[in-house]
Amino acid sequence: MGDEQGEIGVAVEKLWEEVRELSLGTSSYQVECLEYPPSPLRFLRDFVLPNKPCIISNAIHHWPALSKWSGDNSSCYLSNALSHTLVSVHLTPNGQADALAFLPTGNRLCFASAHVERMPFPQALDLISSCSSKPFVAYAQQQNDCFRSEYSTITDDVEPHIPWATQALDCLPEAVNLWIGNHLSQTSFHKDHYENLYAVISGEKHFLLLPPTDVHRMYIRHYPIARYSFSQDREEFELELESPMRYVPWCSVNPYPPPASMDSEMKSFPLYFNGPSPFQCTVKAGDILYLPSMWFHHVTQSPDDNGRTIAINYWYDMQFDIKFAYFNFLQSINLKSVGYPTCLKNLGESSCERIDDANAPRD
Amino acid sequence: MGDEQGEIGVAVEKLWEEVRELSLGTSSYQVECLEYPPSPLRFLRDFVLPNKPCIISNAIHHWPALSKWSGDNSSCYLSNALSHTLVSVHLTPNGQADALAFLPTGNRLCFASAHVERMPFPQALDLISSCSSKPFVAYAQQQNDCFRSEYSTITDDVEPHIPWATQALDCLPEAVNLWIGNHLSQTSFHKDHYENLYAVISGEKHFLLLPPTDVHRMYIRHYPIARYSFSQDREEFELELESPMRYVPWCSVNPYPPPASMDSEMKSFPLYFNGPSPFQCTVKAGDILYLPSMWFHHVTQSPDDNGRTIAINYWYDMQFDIKFAYFNFLQSINLKSVGYPTCLKNLGESSCERIDDANAPRD
Repeated sequence: MGDEQGEIGVAVEKLWEEVRELSLGTSSYQVECLEYPPSPLRFLRDFVLPNKPCIISNAIHHWPALSKWSGDNSSCYLSNALSHTLVSVHLTPNGQADALAFLPTGNRLCFASAHVERMPFPQALDLISSCSSKPFVAYAQQQNDCFRSEYSTITDDVEPHIPWATQALDCLPEAVNLWIGNHLSQTSFHKDHYENLYAVISGEKHFLLLPPTDVHRMYIRHYPIARYSFSQDREEFELELESPMRYVPWCSVNPYPPPASMDSEMKSFPLYFNGPSPFQCTVKAGDILYLPSMWFHHVTQSPDDNGRTIAINYWYDMQFDIKFAYFNFLQSINLKSVGYPTCLKNLGESSCERIDDANAPRD
Repeated sequence: MGDEQGEIGVAVEKLWEEVRELSLGTSSYQVECLEYPPSPLRFLRDFVLPNKPCIISNAIHHWPALSKWSGDNSSCYLSNALSHTLVSVHLTPNGQADALAFLPTGNRLCFASAHVERMPFPQALDLISSCSSKPFVAYAQQQNDCFRSEYSTITDDVEPHIPWATQALDCLPEAVNLWIGNHLSQTSFHKDHYENLYAVISGEKHFLLLPPTDVHRMYIRHYPIARYSFSQDREEFELELESPMRYVPWCSVNPYPPPASMDSEMKSFPLYFNGPSPFQCTVKAGDILYLPSMWFHHVTQSPDDNGRTIAINYWYDMQFDIKFAYFNFLQSINLKSVGYPTCLKNLGESSCERIDDANAPRD
């Protein structure tokens, strides 16, 4: 019976390949690029239906934001437009919020949330741009429809929704979020239960993407939730577990580990590091990335001349359909317990654990 | 480890339920009915994307076929229009072609194909209608685009394609098939690798439908292919294995076994008989059934006043996307080898076998 158990692991590997060959139609791990926005019908048929990402150029060239939010006068324009506006800024020691970090005591990994500070927008913009002289990295973001709530004075600079997506999906966005960060801001691997249209206004965003079928390669585990708090006086962060303790399932893989820990990371997460490469793409100012629901994504960014990357993403409700049911089934398979040979051969006791899902923070 | 193996069986059962609850949105096993044809966008979004069947009324009321092919004058009209046309007629002893049958020797099950006879259409029509006086059941059907090839003189009585489906799927039908049968004609459980639009012109078709996620409930096994040959002289059928032997994977379940074998069928195929009911629907003259790709279907029919059921189906190419990859993964799981407890408890050695797929006949 042992051999047959291992076959499920082999079947999972085959699934990773088949999705790439059949559905994504590429072995180069490139995301398809469209020169112009697709018709609603084409967007639905060729991308939403097969759950396939694409980058769309020339989709937002008519937005005033493209010129107003970048270039020499942009700091001035934004600071004036939002001079009296309080916005939420995420402060972390290293730009990595909603990411795994070691607790100061006991060498234990936790899911570290940022210190969130409400401050006048001009001050936020200053903190984001002047990161090198500060003991923290500031990232203006709040994934709670922040653009339509906090930034209401500049909403006319963009469209309130993406017309061809709205028509295709037959609904308005559930949330619209603004992201203003710098070259240190990162978002760790995770997935969202939304169809995501991600428009870059200034600077560039770099995505690593893995289809939902690769769920086992993310080593999703439950981590205790902790939160940074920054002390202005001492100019330092503390990282403390929530009390009472709560756990969140989160991806364990850091795709860019520091050189010193590369070996141990590769040993801990062989399904990621030895499996098919993630899809990589750079979304430039003026482009939209269609990031399909349930795809795992990791995000870094390159700043514009003002040291900022500005993006807006539109979350549309996804369909919880047969694909979602298949995903839940796949995710429920504990590769270790079915004797996946690669795991048994390469990994220690704690690897290939059962994974679980819950309401986790999102990008 | 034993318990964890059995959990895959439990996860498969949960998948059956989740697809019904999430995607199909119904626990009543009814197929959604639309009073009018959907827009291409709605058809794609609400039915093709989630792989969900529906019945569409008032979609073909403008087809001349609806009046010309039924009613008192229809035999006359059709026989005149096709007076010189040779068509393919499937002859079987019981109306069940492309179905499992016992070989005359050895009590062995095989996949029995019909005796196919080419004959003038008026003769075919007569044989179909006069089944009670004949030692065979005749079914005019040939799943090779027969409508556009054999029946070219009456193609103008219907539309060459379904406009809103063509626009949604961005292609013309790959094949258009005509089906003229009587109350004995049946099609056994199977699935097709096509998006299927099934228009009933006269009489009624009764479908049993199971989503692709229920693949293990069909007990797909490899059966040797046999073919009926009908001797006009002796007025009887012979059923002989192909030589050299070939095998085809086919569904083992007969949903309507004769009362005498009900017990043994239920024991042999508990995942079908004890699992969730299939979706049932009747497609009336004038209606179209959207039968999504990869759904298992079993078809019986009720005749019109002329003793006939006439239908046309349009096969559109399906997308071999992430859903298809998930299906292949699911199908590759051998429930018996992962120790699915229900199987081990209820079934003999030969049950819950590995299933496989191939190019099999289609409805």
